[in-house]
Amino acid sequence: MKNLESDILIIGGGPSALVAATTAKTNNPDKTITIIKEFDIGLVPCGIPYIFGKTLGDSEKDAMACGGIKTNGIDIVIDKVEDVDIESKKVFSKEYTISFDKLIFATGSIPFVHDDLKEALKLQNVFTIEKDKAYIDSIKEYIEDKKKIIVVGSGFIGVEMADELVCNGKEVTIISGSKYILQNSFDKELAKKAEEILLGHGVTLKQGEYAKTIIQKDGIATGIELNDGSIINGEVLILATGYQPNTALAKKAGLKLARYGGVWVDEYMRTKNKDIFAIGDCSGRRDFITREPSKVMLASTSASEARVAGTSLYKIKYMKGFNGTIAIFSTMVGDRAFASAGITESEAKRQNIEYVSATFEGMNRHPATIPDATKQSVKLIAMRHSGRIIGGQVIGDKEAGEMINIIGLAIESELTIYSIISLQVATQPLLTSAPTTYPIVKAAEMIAKEVS
Amino acid sequence: MKNLESDILIIGGGPSALVAATTAKTNNPDKTITIIKEFDIGLVPCGIPYIFGKTLGDSEKDAMACGGIKTNGIDIVIDKVEDVDIESKKVFSKEYTISFDKLIFATGSIPFVHDDLKEALKLQNVFTIEKDKAYIDSIKEYIEDKKKIIVVGSGFIGVEMADELVCNGKEVTIISGSKYILQNSFDKELAKKAEEILLGHGVTLKQGEYAKTIIQKDGIATGIELNDGSIINGEVLILATGYQPNTALAKKAGLKLARYGGVWVDEYMRTKNKDIFAIGDCSGRRDFITREPSKVMLASTSASEARVAGTSLYKIKYMKGFNGTIAIFSTMVGDRAFASAGITESEAKRQNIEYVSATFEGMNRHPATIPDATKQSVKLIAMRHSGRIIGGQVIGDKEAGEMINIIGLAIESELTIYSIISLQVATQPLLTSAPTTYPIVKAAEMIAKEVS
Repeated sequence: MKNLESDILIIGGGPSALVAATTAKTNNPDKTITIIKEFDIGLVPCGIPYIFGKTLGDSEKDAMACGGIKTNGIDIVIDKVEDVDIESKKVFSKEYTISFDKLIFATGSIPFVHDDLKEALKLQNVFTIEKDKAYIDSIKEYIEDKKKIIVVGSGFIGVEMADELVCNGKEVTIISGSKYILQNSFDKELAKKAEEILLGHGVTLKQGEYAKTIIQKDGIATGIELNDGSIINGEVLILATGYQPNTALAKKAGLKLARYGGVWVDEYMRTKNKDIFAIGDCSGRRDFITREPSKVMLASTSASEARVAGTSLYKIKYMKGFNGTIAIFSTMVGDRAFASAGITESEAKRQNIEYVSATFEGMNRHPATIPDATKQSVKLIAMRHSGRIIGGQVIGDKEAGEMINIIGLAIESELTIYSIISLQVATQPLLTSAPTTYPIVKAAEMIAKEVS
Repeated sequence: MKNLESDILIIGGGPSALVAATTAKTNNPDKTITIIKEFDIGLVPCGIPYIFGKTLGDSEKDAMACGGIKTNGIDIVIDKVEDVDIESKKVFSKEYTISFDKLIFATGSIPFVHDDLKEALKLQNVFTIEKDKAYIDSIKEYIEDKKKIIVVGSGFIGVEMADELVCNGKEVTIISGSKYILQNSFDKELAKKAEEILLGHGVTLKQGEYAKTIIQKDGIATGIELNDGSIINGEVLILATGYQPNTALAKKAGLKLARYGGVWVDEYMRTKNKDIFAIGDCSGRRDFITREPSKVMLASTSASEARVAGTSLYKIKYMKGFNGTIAIFSTMVGDRAFASAGITESEAKRQNIEYVSATFEGMNRHPATIPDATKQSVKLIAMRHSGRIIGGQVIGDKEAGEMINIIGLAIESELTIYSIISLQVATQPLLTSAPTTYPIVKAAEMIAKEVS
């Protein structure tokens, strides 16, 4: 057992750990900072589906760069943490005892699998999507000569996996209990457009029925029985049924957990113990709008939390803490970008929010004769009375990935549609819609008309 | 002389006239609305350079759609307005006398040409870039079989024209008194990157010397003499030396003009007469940050002003008027997008603003192994003490056109870098930078570090 000391110690190797380390170093140049993580090479989490298709095609290409960390004077220890003693401020790994002054849990998340399906994980052809290079390589190797693949789950990972696999020549069926794909982020009419693309690529969609049992023979899964009794056969089963906070270590250390199992934290990402922080997927999250506990897990949310923690370790430097997750993300289905921020219309209904929504469909270039011009749709959701923007969804070409960040900034800044109506936006023939029909502004106008 | 009546009358056919008309109709469905404009078919102003290259290649493809206007119940009269009588509330065109209750001037802008060069406009091969289809067609026809083209001016129109022409096989020289191109919108180090691309395409840049005299022979210009005595020869001369408000009519009607010749207006786009509005390039503008009179002319600014006017004709419906131009725009040079919002660093210096700036250079995809990944740079400029964001510049792939709108929203919402540091942004491998290195956030962080 070797003894180490570090003023600031971070457990984890994902994006939030890296961002917390560099932010902490920037704000506390005189403090020693150590990251302890289990594997030397990490994967870019949201790049994993692209390892399975032609986009990356190889896990080596999805490696997360840590070069910046090391040159920044941050130590990295590769080892598995087994215990944390909050009283004595020590972390115990297989080979080290590390004393700390400030500790940040950034232990991430692990796949969530429903109890009924858990047993099947033992089978050699049933996989989850873990953020572990060796494991991902083993899936890729296994499916190499297989044809029929079942993906259970229609969230981002499920959809991205299915699309990459089908475009790589596999026969893919998505099974999902939801009525439409990506339902946490998109309303039905937009999700249907993503479904059309998947169907066009040859994906089979089996929706509205849950995977009940995994059928096996001689240690190999042969298919899935749904709750309506139908059976889908496949050679490989990928369970993309969500993730859960990886908080066994924090729980064992005695930290309080929040409703969905994340470590309870305040707006500055502090646990009940002011020297111990938790960030990223392992932290307990709230929704920015509904104020309900949130299951959203996103590297972008994690990076934001990491920056708040990194600037608040010794002193709270900025008033603005992390005030709940905006649930802002984007993906591509085929050559269309789908992006979402805040809450959907169906979530607003569930939460009993009095809202108005409007969708504007235009073109992403102007005039529409510009060679790469294509359709662009923006849906906005706002509180009926105050006009405050609480959600947005964008479908378009790749620029949609940044347009959602305009809507996200509006939500996070508590802006109303009335601020957006007269917003000055840069427009250019080759880059954007026309100034007369900028879709975020037009959707805001449509809402204003509806409530006036 | 035929008599017409319209509750709301708009003079002009550009983007601001169209937006004002539709906004006015939405807000006043019971009022009659008429647009009077000189030409039946208008051009999309910022699309004009692309008529000269391969992107559009034809003015027909740059026609501005008015279909939405007519189906909206808005009348269009094609005629030239010759007089406005504010007292009797009447507009006189060649064929009509139109009575109005509310009048909106949206008469746009006309090319600005320096006094020393004005005389040369009579020559058959010296052109300005006017928003007039027949005239643009005549330039295009004239240059068809010419080779050597001189573009005077290195603003957006000059640069876009030069790039389109050179890519269409012409020999192009840009002459500009500025030390670097696009200098109103970009600082030198970013403008130099655009220059490199132009030079790579074969454009010749002659900078830092003014065009003094146009040399002519037999009614044809043969070249330009610069103020250092050197002579540049060319077969066609395009003067892209800016625009000025087209306010002869407003002036004749007795309206007060602002410093650079635009019609004086308040934040709700009202002239000194509360029934008469002016919007778009013909209105007198202020800069949002410096509060100085502004010469900026952009369709996006115009559209924003038009929306404010359209909602404020009879009652002021929203508190937020038009509080100055953000000078937000974008363009492409080669396959790179250049975008700018707010003030540049050199303008901040001139205005004696105590600022800090930082530039972050990253990649627009993550990991960088994504096939279409390319460099992306963001420069932010903020007030040193408050951290308030006053400017930004982006270079990247096409998504830069929307990233600048994130920065614009931050400027217009009076946000500081401290709000941006913990901003939640959507990031996705195929669409954006990594969550750990989102460039707007990183540039804000660099500024925070500098001032802490």
